[in-house]
Amino acid sequence: MAYDASTLPDVSGLTVGIIGGTGDQGRGLAYRFARAGQSVLIGSRSSERAAEAAVEIAALRGVSPGVEVAGAGNEEVARRSDVVVIAVPWDGHAATVAALAEPLAGKIVVDCVNPLGFDRQGPYALAVAEGSAAQQAAALLPDSRVCAAFNHVSAPLLADPAIDRIDLDVLICTEDRELVGVVGALAARIPGMRGIYAGRLRNAHQIEAFTANLIAINKRYKAHAGIRVTDL
Amino acid sequence: MAYDASTLPDVSGLTVGIIGGTGDQGRGLAYRFARAGQSVLIGSRSSERAAEAAVEIAALRGVSPGVEVAGAGNEEVARRSDVVVIAVPWDGHAATVAALAEPLAGKIVVDCVNPLGFDRQGPYALAVAEGSAAQQAAALLPDSRVCAAFNHVSAPLLADPAIDRIDLDVLICTEDRELVGVVGALAARIPGMRGIYAGRLRNAHQIEAFTANLIAINKRYKAHAGIRVTDL
Repeated sequence: MAYDASTLPDVSGLTVGIIGGTGDQGRGLAYRFARAGQSVLIGSRSSERAAEAAVEIAALRGVSPGVEVAGAGNEEVARRSDVVVIAVPWDGHAATVAALAEPLAGKIVVDCVNPLGFDRQGPYALAVAEGSAAQQAAALLPDSRVCAAFNHVSAPLLADPAIDRIDLDVLICTEDRELVGVVGALAARIPGMRGIYAGRLRNAHQIEAFTANLIAINKRYKAHAGIRVTDL
Repeated sequence: MAYDASTLPDVSGLTVGIIGGTGDQGRGLAYRFARAGQSVLIGSRSSERAAEAAVEIAALRGVSPGVEVAGAGNEEVARRSDVVVIAVPWDGHAATVAALAEPLAGKIVVDCVNPLGFDRQGPYALAVAEGSAAQQAAALLPDSRVCAAFNHVSAPLLADPAIDRIDLDVLICTEDRELVGVVGALAARIPGMRGIYAGRLRNAHQIEAFTANLIAINKRYKAHAGIRVTDL
């Protein structure tokens, strides 16, 4: 039962779509998945901006010319992808997700959105009626398979083409055991990362909120902090 | 500004009191601090049980005969200690802390209590009116210097005399910068541990709640998980 990367499913044939793929987090994840050889579809409200981002990402260091990196509107990306990462700002989360319920039916949905507020004292966790962004997505997407994951991955590290390895664990919250394998395998395609099951969706709030702590850590220690689970 | 253990203050002369020192977490921390050479006072509602626990801890592997390990009632422990760890069950947290406001005045108070509920689906975070156990302590102890820390340290690892090293980071939430040094230095006296500033008290909730995720991780992977902050 220990973490064992050799038991992960083969996800190399899956197409990963990123809703909000032109934002910092989405773009960074798109780059890392493309660099790992995964077919990636960048989604945006504007298909033009999505296509531009796709061209830019495809040109970055380490992305093989044979790898598909394309851009399209969010709905088309949802429809054409096997695994769909939600990486939009929290402000637009509910509306964006709700509008994609039909094309996301039957799909694996990975929510990496962190509902945070900022004031003069820095970041803090916002209260979410459903408990967390991931639970909100699950409520809005009853026909999808939803997990929270990739909440803590530093966008600057993801985006830096000079960085070959990002040592951290991706915490996966879901009720769906099979998702842990698929999403864990996607995480493991990025050198240095492991995907670790971290509890049910009802325990996603504190993982999302912990990003406020990571921001405080980054500020204090001039770092791009993530977390590694010990004893695994 | 990177984490640098060489800049930590000398805390070897401080007496550490543990309120709830006969519980699993408190007892484990008491053992590790005693093993590190710190004077430790075990507090309990029953001074007899506290004294028994102190004798048992003093006899464990690695505790030097010259190190003070004594037991007493919670109030006496609060009064005689420089740094006081609150390690009581969440159920009794408010009442225990409130009753110690006077002897804890001017003291450093380290709250490691995690407000969790358990049902058939496992652990989950409880809502706390003040936001977190640590904020509740801060509200009840206006004349003390309060932080949250040691929330994620596995009691079985702490208690196992065969274990020499516990590799994890102690996340410290507080408004009081100087506390980070003192509590970080105490953490660093336990081999393998670092004390890391992790934000203001208002961001302590998710650190306490994250213990629910660690319990899920432990169950899934048969581990005694903690966390290490990466890139520090």
